[in-house]
Amino acid sequence: MPTPIIAVVIPAGGGGTRLWPRSRQATPKQFLDIVSERTMLQETTDRVEGLVPPDRLYVITNGRHADAVRQQLSDVPPLNIVGEPVGRDSAPAIGLMAAILEKTLGPEAVMATLPADHVILRPEQFRAILRAAAEVAAEGYLVTLGIPPTGPDVGFGYIQSGETVREHTEAGVPVFAVRQFREKPTREVAEGYLRDGGYFWNAGMFIASVRTLRELYKTHLPQMEAGFAQIVAAYGTDNFESVLGEVFPILEKISVDYGIAEKADKVAVIPADIGWNDVGSWQRLAEVLAEAGHEGENIVIGHHVGVDTHGALIYSPDRLIATIGLDDIIVIDTPDAILICPRSRSEDVKQVVDELKARKRHDLL
Amino acid sequence: MPTPIIAVVIPAGGGGTRLWPRSRQATPKQFLDIVSERTMLQETTDRVEGLVPPDRLYVITNGRHADAVRQQLSDVPPLNIVGEPVGRDSAPAIGLMAAILEKTLGPEAVMATLPADHVILRPEQFRAILRAAAEVAAEGYLVTLGIPPTGPDVGFGYIQSGETVREHTEAGVPVFAVRQFREKPTREVAEGYLRDGGYFWNAGMFIASVRTLRELYKTHLPQMEAGFAQIVAAYGTDNFESVLGEVFPILEKISVDYGIAEKADKVAVIPADIGWNDVGSWQRLAEVLAEAGHEGENIVIGHHVGVDTHGALIYSPDRLIATIGLDDIIVIDTPDAILICPRSRSEDVKQVVDELKARKRHDLL
Repeated sequence: MPTPIIAVVIPAGGGGTRLWPRSRQATPKQFLDIVSERTMLQETTDRVEGLVPPDRLYVITNGRHADAVRQQLSDVPPLNIVGEPVGRDSAPAIGLMAAILEKTLGPEAVMATLPADHVILRPEQFRAILRAAAEVAAEGYLVTLGIPPTGPDVGFGYIQSGETVREHTEAGVPVFAVRQFREKPTREVAEGYLRDGGYFWNAGMFIASVRTLRELYKTHLPQMEAGFAQIVAAYGTDNFESVLGEVFPILEKISVDYGIAEKADKVAVIPADIGWNDVGSWQRLAEVLAEAGHEGENIVIGHHVGVDTHGALIYSPDRLIATIGLDDIIVIDTPDAILICPRSRSEDVKQVVDELKARKRHDLL
Repeated sequence: MPTPIIAVVIPAGGGGTRLWPRSRQATPKQFLDIVSERTMLQETTDRVEGLVPPDRLYVITNGRHADAVRQQLSDVPPLNIVGEPVGRDSAPAIGLMAAILEKTLGPEAVMATLPADHVILRPEQFRAILRAAAEVAAEGYLVTLGIPPTGPDVGFGYIQSGETVREHTEAGVPVFAVRQFREKPTREVAEGYLRDGGYFWNAGMFIASVRTLRELYKTHLPQMEAGFAQIVAAYGTDNFESVLGEVFPILEKISVDYGIAEKADKVAVIPADIGWNDVGSWQRLAEVLAEAGHEGENIVIGHHVGVDTHGALIYSPDRLIATIGLDDIIVIDTPDAILICPRSRSEDVKQVVDELKARKRHDLL
């Protein structure tokens, strides 16, 4: 069986501030060169090169970032980049892109939804798994990628696998049916998952044929169909932006997990040992950089003098950071703000952001 | 007895980097507004206002800083500011200024030598003590100010007091003869000093009549006399800089403590409980600022958001510093370099400076 035509849809609407002070409302992390000299969005398209040509790359993002996306992805046709007038969670965004792909590529195309702000250290294995997933998707499955957990992390949703759908794929891994999606667990529950086995982290990547997706929407979110039809009718015309601006905001605000994936019957999961990391905190980034081969007792991007300094993550491309007598410290320097915290506290950047909101320091958010 | 005419000589040649990254070779701490909005040099002259008029303020500094001094002290006659062509330790500098004062004010004037980079939180008491010191100096004493120690600090020389010279002065304190100058002690020895009592920190401030000083130099450092005579003969003429540049560098390199003070017979010490601090490290500055009334759990100059942050010293006039989960941390932000260390390690800034020298980062020194 030939590999079906694959299109990639990249939801790039995240506005997270978990990598503050580098990520800001105006420049969320997907638009930053956090890990390499390419932005995370560019890396997302780089890693499907050879599998998906630029004209089958699609992005749906916050309207105010659409031009930035077009600049960063100059090979992608401008029409492929859709700017949401407002955020309505993931189901309207993904559903609209499926409806657009039905028009541009037809129902047999397979749509892979790949978040714009994740790191994948083993792109070759990732592409092999995408190919396998596309084949399974062509049989009517909604295929998710399941990350083998390295610990009882409570920051992710989990996917419980069931019976085997395929013993072996060309990627060298099996395909399982999904027994159940599990929301972010408590620590105790997560430890149970690891003990029991058969659980994977939900990395938010899924692959399905356009036909499958469209049917799922018609079945489970039928109220969106009229809106999708209006917007798709205007797609490619001068009226597109105005129709989108009128119709999109009244679509139901709901997640694709809750609205579609958890309700589908034929759902599969492929174990994806691909060096995945969501870079959801500075500590998570430090883990990526260490895994990617950063050597030495400190991870330094920029300029650092360390006296008795061990296990540090230092980001300071412009200024010199000097540290004395500090273990496991994170220092992130930007032109107008500096974050300093122990690695164990990097998730609490949220509290800094909240305090800045309270102080109305919108210039720093 | 009337208070004698007092002239103040401010040695401002220090090039210390103990407050790096704020203090640099080009701008040592005496030229910085570290504690208030005035520079430490300006504060040194401010605190003798009313006691010593601007035309009796003299400064001897590194030649490359002489113009900066003239700018900072615009009320002081430019001739009163002497720029050393090279540093020759303190004895040549103080001796030359005494010889110049002998010419400009005559031998009966009292010369108070006051370092340019110290903090004194009780200037009124300081002035009262200076007046008392000047009276004792007029009787032929070399008078030192002794800081009552608040702990067994090993960073200072100590002055051991002997018999009482005066029971009471108008400053409300007695005057003692000096039994002995003691170099920086070990911790054990310093603890012994505190137990025994009668020991003071040597703050490097001393007061003597020009006559007394000139006699001490003629007796103990006679080899400098010819040089002083040549330079003083040129003082006030167009040849001054060139004669200074020729003669000063060949004067013996020796400290005034070792060359003069320790050899004098009539040496007195006045206990000076004046809120003195040498600001010899960021930790010492934090102590000053706390004593000066900075309130709150952190001392902040500039912009700071602290989450679970206690006992911090934050200096960041331009950027925002965000800290999470850090106790007793020092953060000093400047346009090109940032220092981060626990308070207990602030003396180790020296190691950072040494490393920068090794890396030839002269731009940061």
